[in-house]
Amino acid sequence: MSELGLDQLPVRADLRGMTPYGAPQLEVPVALNTNENPIPPSAELSAAIGAAVAETARGLNRYPDRDATRLRADLARYLGHGLSQENVWAANGSNEILQQLLHVFGGPGRTALGFEPSYSMHPVLARVTGTAWMGLDRGQDFRIDPEEARAAVARHQPTLVLLTSPNNPTGTALELETVEAVAETCPGVVVVDEAYAEFRREGTPSAVSLLERYPRLIVTRTMSKAFALAGARIGYLAAHPAAVEALQLVRLPYHLSATSQVVAKTALDHATELLASVDELRAERDACVTWLRNQGYTVADSDANFVMFGTFSDRSAVWNGLLERGVLVREVGPPGWLRVTVGTATEMARFRAALLEVTHQA
Amino acid sequence: MSELGLDQLPVRADLRGMTPYGAPQLEVPVALNTNENPIPPSAELSAAIGAAVAETARGLNRYPDRDATRLRADLARYLGHGLSQENVWAANGSNEILQQLLHVFGGPGRTALGFEPSYSMHPVLARVTGTAWMGLDRGQDFRIDPEEARAAVARHQPTLVLLTSPNNPTGTALELETVEAVAETCPGVVVVDEAYAEFRREGTPSAVSLLERYPRLIVTRTMSKAFALAGARIGYLAAHPAAVEALQLVRLPYHLSATSQVVAKTALDHATELLASVDELRAERDACVTWLRNQGYTVADSDANFVMFGTFSDRSAVWNGLLERGVLVREVGPPGWLRVTVGTATEMARFRAALLEVTHQA
Repeated sequence: MSELGLDQLPVRADLRGMTPYGAPQLEVPVALNTNENPIPPSAELSAAIGAAVAETARGLNRYPDRDATRLRADLARYLGHGLSQENVWAANGSNEILQQLLHVFGGPGRTALGFEPSYSMHPVLARVTGTAWMGLDRGQDFRIDPEEARAAVARHQPTLVLLTSPNNPTGTALELETVEAVAETCPGVVVVDEAYAEFRREGTPSAVSLLERYPRLIVTRTMSKAFALAGARIGYLAAHPAAVEALQLVRLPYHLSATSQVVAKTALDHATELLASVDELRAERDACVTWLRNQGYTVADSDANFVMFGTFSDRSAVWNGLLERGVLVREVGPPGWLRVTVGTATEMARFRAALLEVTHQA
Repeated sequence: MSELGLDQLPVRADLRGMTPYGAPQLEVPVALNTNENPIPPSAELSAAIGAAVAETARGLNRYPDRDATRLRADLARYLGHGLSQENVWAANGSNEILQQLLHVFGGPGRTALGFEPSYSMHPVLARVTGTAWMGLDRGQDFRIDPEEARAAVARHQPTLVLLTSPNNPTGTALELETVEAVAETCPGVVVVDEAYAEFRREGTPSAVSLLERYPRLIVTRTMSKAFALAGARIGYLAAHPAAVEALQLVRLPYHLSATSQVVAKTALDHATELLASVDELRAERDACVTWLRNQGYTVADSDANFVMFGTFSDRSAVWNGLLERGVLVREVGPPGWLRVTVGTATEMARFRAALLEVTHQA
């Protein structure tokens, strides 16, 4: 084919020169860079998933249930709080959920507001959907003060606020007071991205408990993390049925395959097994925080399955040093910080040993 | 939860009052309304899909290959014409492919042009992505004349042209001269939606053969139709590598699940079996066209797995009458026309008998 550069294609002006989102997909012995759950589905569950898909495959010549009704009912049951199928929507990862939300509530002339550092896909999704992005700075401790949040939302009048609890990459959970202050003030919809909710510490609340009181509140979740199904790409949300109805205007018809629906349903049937890893990972997380602090690092409190720590005068050098020792972490967050996903006990031991070596303490 | 109407949510102004896209999903004995392939995957293939997914499930805690490299290589091999992985991109149905194309090449201030009647998702996708839609009328015979197309594109200077071959709902294939005229004139990218390409009649060309000569030409395909995998949601495109690169700027990271990738790969390994139904369906299609013409109907020439016929003074009454007899067709196309998907021989016999009854000829 002829030579053709990207600049000879009519790429949208505001996307020119951008880099695609995504961490490097490297083959390493210890991958602690994308907040995956290190514990794979068991042989039994994998067989159950295979059997369910084999059964579903007999009808794959037909389109899937466009409304994913059975899966949504199961997800509602899992969330509890009196939610039902009408409150829940599912898509190919919470990225697609967020894109659908920005499509229907965002777009040209509208603003989405978030508190940074946060999940770096939020501004990317805003840009792609033509929504203005306003990123406000979190404080030193990465908390969001309820009254400061209230004032910021009142001042900027965003159509969407994207909150995160726990926040990626800092691990910081929101106080319910903050969500309430924003929900009371925001003229539009308030989204709380709770991708890592199952990992939160004892006593940390979830915004799902607020849905009853705030009809323009939306909580997004995923099966990628606690359910250890990053490869299956199942994200979902809980909200007022009117919000779910609004999404129908922008969802791609038949967006969620029959196989994805049945894989998710089968995994939910095995929720107890899948979620058993959560307690183990929370314990590893807390141990990691303690160990890093004992080493003299500054460590953000974490309610997630990752820990952000620092600070390094040259974090790239540390990142590279760890990678040379087979340990891949993520160079993300404010300057000087690194983020490590919580792996198995063995993986965390390799991480600690590698970090000591790289920082010349071993 | 409190009462809340759609009008109390900040739905985008240009989406208010719209209806979600999609045919009714009704349980009927003879479903001939969504151009599905009536022949399900065999027990052997279904078992192979289940086994492959069971194997993949062991690693579902990890994110999928973001670039779907192995699947793209297999799709390139299937298409032939010297294409390789760099020429191919895959997503959750060709709807997602088209949305990605509109995101990166469309958007506010840009225009996509198509020739109608055509796939009704094209203007919907344009609207959601903020792209202006210009729908030009096809002639009486639903052809697109090369010189008229050239003149229209020269006059309107669209950033994207969305062509279809064969066209849905008319079944009309494009002459290569039309694609060439548009590709020579269009200042932007030219997309040829070939969802139904495998069903085209002997001698009807595919635009894949033109990719070598027109670097801004993009051909989209799907495994939903000829491969009988509508439930698996696998769409793809073939294009210059620069176009594939451009899509990376707007694709959701990890958009295609590991299960979708392996289901598609397994199906491609069984392409011979899956495509065996195509000849049978083409013969049924041609027989259906002949029968309808013998009954005195006007029937559009079809290179697809459906037939558009008419005209009826009250097509809704005919649609309803067929449905009452267990046969679901689609009320789509210009006023007075109906579209019937080509089913099995048994299903087509039921369709013919029901139509005779409804039109008081039996």
